[in-house]
Amino acid sequence: MESKEENMGNMQSPFLIVNPKSYLYGNESLKLAKAADQAAKDTGLPIIFTCPYADVRMIRENTENIIVCVQSMDPLTPGRGMGHVLPESLKEAGADAVFLNHAENPKTLSDLYACIRRAAELDMTSIVCADSITEAKAVACMNPDVVLAEPTDLIGTGQVADDAYTMEAIDQVRKVNPDVLVVVASGVSTAEDCYNMIRLGADGTGGTSGILNAPSPAVRIREMAEAIVRAVKASD
Amino acid sequence: MESKEENMGNMQSPFLIVNPKSYLYGNESLKLAKAADQAAKDTGLPIIFTCPYADVRMIRENTENIIVCVQSMDPLTPGRGMGHVLPESLKEAGADAVFLNHAENPKTLSDLYACIRRAAELDMTSIVCADSITEAKAVACMNPDVVLAEPTDLIGTGQVADDAYTMEAIDQVRKVNPDVLVVVASGVSTAEDCYNMIRLGADGTGGTSGILNAPSPAVRIREMAEAIVRAVKASD
Amino acid sequence: MESKEENMGNMQSPFLIVNPKSYLYGNESLKLAKAADQAAKDTGLPIIFTCPYADVRMIRENTENIIVCVQSMDPLTPGRGMGHVLPESLKEAGADAVFLNHAENPKTLSDLYACIRRAAELDMTSIVCADSITEAKAVACMNPDVVLAEPTDLIGTGQVADDAYTMEAIDQVRKVNPDVLVVVASGVSTAEDCYNMIRLGADGTGGTSGILNAPSPAVRIREMAEAIVRAVKASD
Amino acid sequence: MESKEENMGNMQSPFLIVNPKSYLYGNESLKLAKAADQAAKDTGLPIIFTCPYADVRMIRENTENIIVCVQSMDPLTPGRGMGHVLPESLKEAGADAVFLNHAENPKTLSDLYACIRRAAELDMTSIVCADSITEAKAVACMNPDVVLAEPTDLIGTGQVADDAYTMEAIDQVRKVNPDVLVVVASGVSTAEDCYNMIRLGADGTGGTSGILNAPSPAVRIREMAEAIVRAVKASD
Repeated sequence: MESKEENMGNMQSPFLIVNPKSYLYGNESLKLAKAADQAAKDTGLPIIFTCPYADVRMIRENTENIIVCVQSMDPLTPGRGMGHVLPESLKEAGADAVFLNHAENPKTLSDLYACIRRAAELDMTSIVCADSITEAKAVACMNPDVVLAEPTDLIGTGQVADDAYTMEAIDQVRKVNPDVLVVVASGVSTAEDCYNMIRLGADGTGGTSGILNAPSPAVRIREMAEAIVRAVKASD
Repeated sequence: MESKEENMGNMQSPFLIVNPKSYLYGNESLKLAKAADQAAKDTGLPIIFTCPYADVRMIRENTENIIVCVQSMDPLTPGRGMGHVLPESLKEAGADAVFLNHAENPKTLSDLYACIRRAAELDMTSIVCADSITEAKAVACMNPDVVLAEPTDLIGTGQVADDAYTMEAIDQVRKVNPDVLVVVASGVSTAEDCYNMIRLGADGTGGTSGILNAPSPAVRIREMAEAIVRAVKASD
Repeated sequence: MESKEENMGNMQSPFLIVNPKSYLYGNESLKLAKAADQAAKDTGLPIIFTCPYADVRMIRENTENIIVCVQSMDPLTPGRGMGHVLPESLKEAGADAVFLNHAENPKTLSDLYACIRRAAELDMTSIVCADSITEAKAVACMNPDVVLAEPTDLIGTGQVADDAYTMEAIDQVRKVNPDVLVVVASGVSTAEDCYNMIRLGADGTGGTSGILNAPSPAVRIREMAEAIVRAVKASD
Repeated sequence: MESKEENMGNMQSPFLIVNPKSYLYGNESLKLAKAADQAAKDTGLPIIFTCPYADVRMIRENTENIIVCVQSMDPLTPGRGMGHVLPESLKEAGADAVFLNHAENPKTLSDLYACIRRAAELDMTSIVCADSITEAKAVACMNPDVVLAEPTDLIGTGQVADDAYTMEAIDQVRKVNPDVLVVVASGVSTAEDCYNMIRLGADGTGGTSGILNAPSPAVRIREMAEAIVRAVKASD
């Protein structure tokens, strides 16, 4: 594929995120990871695959092309910290990237900034979620590799996230920090949705339920990856 | 060795806990786990070994005799819960036991009870920490496999945890729930300390810094295990 | 009224809890507090009235008979602790009692025990919520004045909390600690419900929505108080 | 005094912050509030005075010139939220301003943004703490009235916060959002320190221990206020 040849920090644009959250673990997670790995190999598109902490090493050892990503981590360094998620342990097990501040696991501002710095120290790609455009701008100030903007600003307003919202989110984040890649993913469930997001200017997109609820999740991943590749070609 | 032949819930008494917290991870953790595994084999004593989530599978695959234990977990079931520690993922990776409510990672009362139940559902041994004798009694009501009582009741009082405190802690917890095993471990750093704890009636003991700061942590683990075996024989 | 003449710790049995949560504040809270105060005076029944922290002093200065209760607090002592709720500040403002560990604001086990002790030090009545009978027993070990058991054990089971559940909750808590008063309040919305709870053996009961959604909340409080008094007489 | 006649959002620059945290409450808090009130009246300088939630109404009723400020709040609206700090209750009691995200009570990014919006809706001045210049910039994106930058970036580096740091913090925050007022207060303990901070360009300054540990806290407040007034005149 032709790429935008952007490589800001640790991450190349565009990319696909496959995020099974805690729906999959162990062998089921590995199985989908292998499908994502094959799709990444065949399309040349970077694919970020999230998994439980306990599955990082197994997935890393059995795949070659995906970016293995954990769902969160804590800002501690080796030492005490019983019960916390040590970044060094994830890195040594094979994690390449980390999600931070997901709405299901929010971080304090200070912990979030500390985690972004810890990821950078360990050469792990940081993908930081934000519930609104304003929060996405705040996140961008802290210089993560990727900001994932979810339009929960719109929750309860009766509006649906539309193209104008997506373009606005991308534009606002880039104004604050042009080096940060921007992902908009809310409501994305089909290859067509992925195509549209990339055409609107997002550096990446992806999903959870859109993939897991597809007739074949493996096929859905491939379709999404191919749609992103097509969207890039259409932009050239 | 002769054992008390107690096997309450998932755990046999007595036992040793080797808890490197976040001081060790990856290959360093595996190395000490193997030493603990050999000590468990040679002495016949059950040894609980804690490790980071990302190391569970590797340690389980490379040891036979230790009880692989994670440092905490969350009460969720498979599904959403991005960024949380799914019990099923730990179990499938090979975790046999879980620490809960350590002072460095405290749980709300409700989450703690939910985690104890989740551990039981998955046939994982639950080891629950308590900062005082009173909290240890409260924990015992929730029927975990093991209560680990740390005498922080005494913090700031100028007193040191002594034999009387240890016996009191054990006695009080057993009154509330005779099926719960009791560990007292604060300040334990030598084989002699372990011997004493078992002689005083504890079902288990162990440590972190006493092992990691020893001239040879592997030797210290073996010495501790042998001391516990001697203490049991002396009681018979 | 005739009372059971029990006065365990700070609280006399039976009693009524009026808990407007964050639905009322300022003048609206004061208005209902005055109605509760009149009902307490006329019936002789102790009535616990909860209010926002900022309203404690105003309500205390304008009532004589109610037990003014805050919705939570933190375990700190005077000093640092910016942004936390200092027990001494509540006591000096006129708070007589404190709710702890409500499902909408859960506490860690350690903080909960520390708060119960802080309340005792300041001669404030501690009312501790528990989501299940098992948690209620754990709470009772920590010797609060009152345990409030909510049958969320039953959530998702398709069952409704019935008389057997209520009696079981009361019985189990009393076995652990006969000095702790027991409240069962879930689903209580009418005077009839209050009458039934006291007849089943609860030391207190009360509600939020059952009072606030009544045609006249003031009248509903009076009806509930009178029903509790009748229940006690019926027991004699 | 001559003022910069800036009135951004709810707050006029410059100003002094008197923050007794949880060291003072009740009558002791009121006594110092009255001293601050007199100093505000005599110097014409806006003085922000923080107090426990339970003291807001009493302090507001007994002072005329200070800006009464709470130490934190929660983002909820009237309704459920048992045990949380309802912004409406603070406003009705007389709070004019709110501290948010203090290092002793950190907020998640989402809660922080929600609290800033809640403060704006209620016409309360929001003063948001940040542990580093980077976090201060992130905070500024969320458009609070005041950002309070504490140089904990420097913690552990062996350096002391100096004039260059202060000017850098002010400059960086203003670049992100010129409408936000900037406070630098770490280590400020004397009138001379206040003078210097304002001369360096801060919109406000203040302290806790520098005031409470002074031979006379009331005199120290007056000296600080006068120093800020002098600094403004020197700048004209």
